[in-house]
Amino acid sequence: MGQMKIYDFPGGPYVTRVRMALAENNLQSLVEYVLVDLTKGEHKKPDLLAKNYSGTLPVLEIEPGLFLSECTAITEYLDNLDGKPKLTGVTPKEKGIIHMMNHRAEIELLDPFSVYFHNSTPGLGPEVEIYQNNEWGLHQRAKSVKGMHYFDSVLRKQPFIAGNTFSMADITVVGGLIFGAMLKVPIPEECDALIEWYARMQTRSSFINRVTMSNS
Amino acid sequence: MGQMKIYDFPGGPYVTRVRMALAENNLQSLVEYVLVDLTKGEHKKPDLLAKNYSGTLPVLEIEPGLFLSECTAITEYLDNLDGKPKLTGVTPKEKGIIHMMNHRAEIELLDPFSVYFHNSTPGLGPEVEIYQNNEWGLHQRAKSVKGMHYFDSVLRKQPFIAGNTFSMADITVVGGLIFGAMLKVPIPEECDALIEWYARMQTRSSFINRVTMSNS
Ligand SMILES: N[C@@H](CCC(=O)N[C@@H](CS)C(=O)NCC(=O)O)C(=O)O
Ligand SMILES: N[C@@H](CCC(=O)N[C@@H](CS)C(=O)NCC(=O)O)C(=O)O
Repeated sequence: MGQMKIYDFPGGPYVTRVRMALAENNLQSLVEYVLVDLTKGEHKKPDLLAKNYSGTLPVLEIEPGLFLSECTAITEYLDNLDGKPKLTGVTPKEKGIIHMMNHRAEIELLDPFSVYFHNSTPGLGPEVEIYQNNEWGLHQRAKSVKGMHYFDSVLRKQPFIAGNTFSMADITVVGGLIFGAMLKVPIPEECDALIEWYARMQTRSSFINRVTMSNS
Repeated sequence: MGQMKIYDFPGGPYVTRVRMALAENNLQSLVEYVLVDLTKGEHKKPDLLAKNYSGTLPVLEIEPGLFLSECTAITEYLDNLDGKPKLTGVTPKEKGIIHMMNHRAEIELLDPFSVYFHNSTPGLGPEVEIYQNNEWGLHQRAKSVKGMHYFDSVLRKQPFIAGNTFSMADITVVGGLIFGAMLKVPIPEECDALIEWYARMQTRSSFINRVTMSNS
């Protein structure tokens, strides 16, 4: 299989989701990293917009000129490459539950933190943040904090976000907590189960190597 | 296989996505419909919130006490039941592209229409819409209109949203256009390809029967 290119920006919470998915599948050697500098707004320039209409990272070039964006979609692709999905489920029930918890982690935790960042903080700077709605951003911040309490309640009943095994949904919650930490919104201290789970997640090699991963 | 219950509200744009997924898979006879009246705010009451943290429809009870929410997740479940996915892809590449276009249809078309509805119109009424941000809603409306132009550009190059075959991504764009019509935001007339595609979608029996489907 040929070399794939990944357009990303180390440290970004969404970017981390795909880096972790790559590492969990031992596929690091398949990709070559191309830096797109978010702080310079490179992701909103024509070159990247032609690869991803939404102007976000990461983007995976799976064959020359064929670009996959959206973390969930990239994860589905990578996780199914060898026909033995590890992160996205095997049975219909597993697939359903993992996709539910994954999307819930997006809409109730990760995405609202992102909206808060881009609307109620300087975000990526005035060149990129051409429209901001501070009040909406603050509401989204509150939504993510409520989301942390919800995921804590889930983890009081089971070891992983989607049940008894590690999955894409855990990675998405990790992305949310990375974003929260960046924004100085810590996990509420009463959320013991979430705190304990996050400590466990941080011992995974896919987490430890998420920023330094690179084959150059 | 036992009877599954689906908590929904006929006509709702997201609800329609699952009704179409059911019909495309010929699974209508597997489900029993339970009405949750959105106009009375029943989806924000404890009973439904216990089934779906996010308080949205549809919710599919796949076995007694096991509730799946999120249209994409429910579609993954239903579409994989017989081991022959029709809507969500078979190869890694198909899965990746379908999930990318499906999520893009959510974030660039369907979800922003929903946010507009709940923030800049009376939405589901004052009991449900306890916080509204009119300006944000108007920005989201503009995002969806831009999204219609984007999907038109996609359909100028290929017959379906994710390529040469009908998929979950087409259903999600249909959901977006149903929401747009409800909100009196028509497809811009210069979007011929999108208009032609939508006319084709409306001839599918899964579309025609979407509201009347019911086994009661
Ligand atoms: N829906 C996208 C969101 C990706 C995203 O927001 N990525 C961040 C980098 S970690 C980004 O590109 N932010 C720049 C911006 O939104 O301006 C996905 O799931 O991949
Ligand atoms: N992310 C959810 C969104 C579902 C959704 O918004 N459904 C509508 C009904 S078609 C709803 O429940 N709206 C009520 C509300 O948001 O208050 C999904 O994909 O299933």
